[in-house]
Amino acid sequence: MELTGSNLIDGTEHRSGVTVTRSVDPRTGEAFGPGFVDATDAEVAVAVRAAVDAAPAVRAAAPETLAALLEAIAAGLEALGNALVDTAVAETGLDAGRITGERARTCGQLRAFAEVALTGTHLGLRIDTADPTSTPPRPDLRRLQVPVGPVAVFGASNFPLAFSVPGGDTASALAAGCPVLAKAHPSHPATSELSGRVIAAAVADVGLPAGTFALLHGREPSVSRTLVGEPGLAAVGFTGSERAGRALYDLAAARPEPIPVFAEMGSLNPQFVTAGAIEERGEELASGLVASATLGTGQFCTKPGLVFVPDSTLGRAFEASVARAAAEVASTPLLNSGIATALRSRLDDLTAVAGVEVLHAGAVAEAAGSWASATVLATCDGVLRATPLLGEECFGPVTVLVRVPTWERLEALAGELDGSLTACVHAAAAEHDHLGVLLDRLSTRVGRVVLDQFPTGVSVSPAMQHGGPYPASTSAQHTSVGSAAIERFLRPVTYQNCPQPLLPAPLRDENPAGRWRLVDGQLTRDAVS
Amino acid sequence: MELTGSNLIDGTEHRSGVTVTRSVDPRTGEAFGPGFVDATDAEVAVAVRAAVDAAPAVRAAAPETLAALLEAIAAGLEALGNALVDTAVAETGLDAGRITGERARTCGQLRAFAEVALTGTHLGLRIDTADPTSTPPRPDLRRLQVPVGPVAVFGASNFPLAFSVPGGDTASALAAGCPVLAKAHPSHPATSELSGRVIAAAVADVGLPAGTFALLHGREPSVSRTLVGEPGLAAVGFTGSERAGRALYDLAAARPEPIPVFAEMGSLNPQFVTAGAIEERGEELASGLVASATLGTGQFCTKPGLVFVPDSTLGRAFEASVARAAAEVASTPLLNSGIATALRSRLDDLTAVAGVEVLHAGAVAEAAGSWASATVLATCDGVLRATPLLGEECFGPVTVLVRVPTWERLEALAGELDGSLTACVHAAAAEHDHLGVLLDRLSTRVGRVVLDQFPTGVSVSPAMQHGGPYPASTSAQHTSVGSAAIERFLRPVTYQNCPQPLLPAPLRDENPAGRWRLVDGQLTRDAVS
Repeated sequence: MELTGSNLIDGTEHRSGVTVTRSVDPRTGEAFGPGFVDATDAEVAVAVRAAVDAAPAVRAAAPETLAALLEAIAAGLEALGNALVDTAVAETGLDAGRITGERARTCGQLRAFAEVALTGTHLGLRIDTADPTSTPPRPDLRRLQVPVGPVAVFGASNFPLAFSVPGGDTASALAAGCPVLAKAHPSHPATSELSGRVIAAAVADVGLPAGTFALLHGREPSVSRTLVGEPGLAAVGFTGSERAGRALYDLAAARPEPIPVFAEMGSLNPQFVTAGAIEERGEELASGLVASATLGTGQFCTKPGLVFVPDSTLGRAFEASVARAAAEVASTPLLNSGIATALRSRLDDLTAVAGVEVLHAGAVAEAAGSWASATVLATCDGVLRATPLLGEECFGPVTVLVRVPTWERLEALAGELDGSLTACVHAAAAEHDHLGVLLDRLSTRVGRVVLDQFPTGVSVSPAMQHGGPYPASTSAQHTSVGSAAIERFLRPVTYQNCPQPLLPAPLRDENPAGRWRLVDGQLTRDAVS
Repeated sequence: MELTGSNLIDGTEHRSGVTVTRSVDPRTGEAFGPGFVDATDAEVAVAVRAAVDAAPAVRAAAPETLAALLEAIAAGLEALGNALVDTAVAETGLDAGRITGERARTCGQLRAFAEVALTGTHLGLRIDTADPTSTPPRPDLRRLQVPVGPVAVFGASNFPLAFSVPGGDTASALAAGCPVLAKAHPSHPATSELSGRVIAAAVADVGLPAGTFALLHGREPSVSRTLVGEPGLAAVGFTGSERAGRALYDLAAARPEPIPVFAEMGSLNPQFVTAGAIEERGEELASGLVASATLGTGQFCTKPGLVFVPDSTLGRAFEASVARAAAEVASTPLLNSGIATALRSRLDDLTAVAGVEVLHAGAVAEAAGSWASATVLATCDGVLRATPLLGEECFGPVTVLVRVPTWERLEALAGELDGSLTACVHAAAAEHDHLGVLLDRLSTRVGRVVLDQFPTGVSVSPAMQHGGPYPASTSAQHTSVGSAAIERFLRPVTYQNCPQPLLPAPLRDENPAGRWRLVDGQLTRDAVS
């Protein structure tokens, strides 16, 4: 597949802008491939207009059509073979095994949402039959979830497929019946164009309007601002930094007609390691922790960033184990030089804080390739509380151990933490009886509470929750991973007193697909009699 | 019950503020009863602190406790008997029949949410059992909805019970397990204190902390601003004007930690009357329309504000019928003098628009009592498009007929309307085949699409949707009426690899209550084996 660096808008290539981005291999710092041209304001407007015009057809598409679209995208990504893997590896520095796994995850996600579209589990069907005898009389009411309209998707640098152009946001928005405007991340524009061309081709293959999907390049933040400000846009999916996510959230909230921004942002993912866990499996915990914290060079939104350990001799032994495990981790590439620069600067600031010890100092290379190895810091809970910087996510292979003198202090800390995607408790079985308060408090601060496992590795399944109180997400009420992610791009509409032929098919009395529906307050797969 | 005009905070009466509001009977303009004292910033902070401190107990309360609380509130409102009805009538000018009906609706709502709390239908239970054979291996994941935390409720002037202190927002937030801070509407402070005392007593009766509920007075907008800015607050429920709702939304979005504002605001509730409907039942339609538009002196959020009629001889005959029906409607009280002043001003502005005809001129009295009778205006679709004022809700017994020359223009208009709570199509059965495009477009602009009925009268039932695209609501993804309203005050938390005893009871393998759960993607009431 020949890359042109164009924006893909309404079936046409557009490249009238002036700002150009090139792919850079972060392992070497060398640029390669074509120049990717930022979309102009006019091009963004054309793309949104095309999406608005396409929306009725996407909304009206048969479930089979949407499922076929998602299946075709998955097949198309697979058909790209090594070209896609090699490009993503070269743009991200992530290894081929990881990218191959991420492609499988991405295709699995697309197929899972095809299944959701087919079975209609997202439709939230509710039927209240008319009850003329009630006071006041109740009319016939039938409610279902409908697509919100055009969705802008802002991909992340750290998952060039699974959380980028062909990722969960795009898959769930299309499954919901919404056109998608995908903003390519400037850290992997070639991977984005490859994926974007697959999606555009799949849209054409299933006979949906070309406006159903657009790929927009934008190194300059102004492109994102223009996109979020477009009146035709209905919602935003975003994965990335707190700074960028908040900026989009603020823009969307200030629109004449505000729209929701589902931003999944930074997260500290605190770990709580008990004395019992250290006694039982200290070495295993230390190596597991370091493996989790350095996975993908620590560039995971679920990276364990804070680790609470007992302030005791036992705790110090665990710290030493962590430092030893960190020393064994080789330097691996960072996603881009900007992340390397930010990481070095953050490490300088963190190590300058009085009361922060360096247990193991990693290296950060910025010139001629961006690489980093693991850093382990340690401090006490007093310094943590007094130092806002320690409460901010540090993107990269850095983890901070925090010594806590008593269990009561640990429980208090748990309730004070900023919102995170996850929190993990590592305890011995004999300690479980004492975890009630800790788990209850953590449940108010995070979206996923984990026992005796690490937070990295986010299953794509119905019970997943990937989202948490701010600043983990701008909407803690939603998830960006798992089948429930589709709820972000739906809203309910009720039909009152509507004759059968005029009702959307899933709300008619007959229920040939045997869908679950809440009929007069009872879940059933039966037809309405 | 003796009224004191105090703020009810953490089981204590507070009245250290300086701004005082008195009840006014809008039928006469006369003040009565005690002075109600605006909460000070310090009192607001104390109330939110108490709510934050109460939150763990409310969150942990057994479903039976929450249900008992809601039942006790309903019983308490009923036990107030005529005192409550008389007070609400005197503060709102609404008649005793209406208030009695509204109390029944309010108590029905409270009991419906008690049932939701008991059965746990709002918990959204999902269980993915561990699958070590999948790639990557899937851990045990169990997801449920948990309360968001303290909720501020801003009641509306037009429903002193059902959308105020003891209304649907309070009922659904308490059922969800959230403490509530209710801001009394200054147009009915005595009704608010009566209701608030019932709720505070019920909280004490069921043994929940006093911080579970607070009643705050605030004639000055600064009280609302202070409340929404409190860091401990988790969400806001609001019913009222677009101006006030948007102001709270903007404040909440600008917080360091933004919180959701579920504001149900203005709405035009467009009506589409076809030629066939006029031929079939023109007189009945005209009188039904006027009855709906003047119900509660036109002070309903679902009042039909715009009526599209054929620009034809037949349409003119229908207009004349509407004007005749309006002439027969007696003048009735408005809620307060502020609404009377705003209504008179708006009518002056509307009637000054070139191209707006007065089909029937109502009267608005402001001095010594606030009363209004029905006004019917008429214009054409070109003037509507060119006049933003015609697209804004006019609170009061005013409806605007809009002449549309062709069906195609009507369909085009349907897609261009601002968001509304509802839209109604009045057609003859023979015309149903032609309604597809119109209904599809309306479904993108409203939350409830109604066939051959009027929008006023909002059933409290599972399939109700009371919320729509902005400016009808700040979140079109939620409803403020019906059992789904509880979703506003919940967020999902997933437990990963959590031993049975540490799981919240509804997520354990056993399922003694027989709750519906999505287990490995299948809905079932069975235990997990």
